[in-house]
Amino acid sequence: MQQYPSILLTRAVDEFSKLPGIGPKTALRLVLHMLRQEPQSADNLATALTELCHGVKYCSVCHNISDNERCDICSNPKRDNTTVCVVENIRDVMAIENTQQYRGLYHVLGGVISPMDGVGPSDLEIASLQQRVEQDNIKEVILALSPTMEGDATNFYIFRRLAPLKVSVSVIARGIAQNDELQYADEVTLGRSIINRTPFKN
Amino acid sequence: MQQYPSILLTRAVDEFSKLPGIGPKTALRLVLHMLRQEPQSADNLATALTELCHGVKYCSVCHNISDNERCDICSNPKRDNTTVCVVENIRDVMAIENTQQYRGLYHVLGGVISPMDGVGPSDLEIASLQQRVEQDNIKEVILALSPTMEGDATNFYIFRRLAPLKVSVSVIARGIAQNDELQYADEVTLGRSIINRTPFKN
Repeated sequence: MQQYPSILLTRAVDEFSKLPGIGPKTALRLVLHMLRQEPQSADNLATALTELCHGVKYCSVCHNISDNERCDICSNPKRDNTTVCVVENIRDVMAIENTQQYRGLYHVLGGVISPMDGVGPSDLEIASLQQRVEQDNIKEVILALSPTMEGDATNFYIFRRLAPLKVSVSVIARGIAQNDELQYADEVTLGRSIINRTPFKN
Repeated sequence: MQQYPSILLTRAVDEFSKLPGIGPKTALRLVLHMLRQEPQSADNLATALTELCHGVKYCSVCHNISDNERCDICSNPKRDNTTVCVVENIRDVMAIENTQQYRGLYHVLGGVISPMDGVGPSDLEIASLQQRVEQDNIKEVILALSPTMEGDATNFYIFRRLAPLKVSVSVIARGIAQNDELQYADEVTLGRSIINRTPFKN
């Protein structure tokens, strides 16, 4: 166990080491970097963190992170409010927004069904999704969850729950990624990309 | 430029991105991790950081980081107070302490002379080292700076400044590192390790 020459230093390094992917050595490097800066920059980081963690709000409609009761996407009248894209977390919202290919709304589940991790349907925002579809005149639900076993199970569960409602459910295309080499693609992906081939368009 | 859905989130990510080796993606990952924890853990990190950066003290003797006016090493009566090891920064102190091979005191310079980075002798704790040697009955000064051009220049500068005083100046051994392969060692290192060969001891 590394001994640090100061209790304050030890405490700061310990707290930084709790962050994912940051070990004691990196934590020490970061803390010593902060020490070389003006104390103001430590204050800025500290304030930003506490303000975020105490003041964070989530959109009451789509559960995306937001500064207001309703997020900017849900309250934007230019967005197509008949389409809802279901994603796991807010990072996926950002990733899809970055593509600039989607003009509908989102619904952040907060994860996927995973019995191994003790995450069941009631831990996710699935009931609120069903409610939205029932009340908000949603025409299409796009499932954009991770292409894993848990994601597939969640897709299937949501599909079953929405089946009695008048809504079309689609899932994002899976296939060979841009610039991937065919010979290195796994068999499931390559097989599906042949089954789900699309008409050639110029 | 990535758009974040919340100003508080943007600010926290920006502050984290200012840390060395942490880009916007890692910063976002860290911030979202903090959001999933209790707000208390963000408070802990924030408090540890501000307390450190505002309350940090440096030992008045060796300039190592310390909780008191005099650090634990300088105030330890069991340490040999006639030997001073000159290092660049507090990380080097920790590294040498970890070897458990050194029982003397330290002197933290705060860097090395580097005209390219605008660091001259007056920016470092060299005058205070000279003062310690003059006043504190120091018998040996061990130079343990980086084996770089800047480190060598600083070694030489300190050696010249201490030359009129009655103190022996030594420099840590340079040579082949444990488990290094000879064929991959650079010529300067290998050449020196032959010149500075030591009597074989069992």
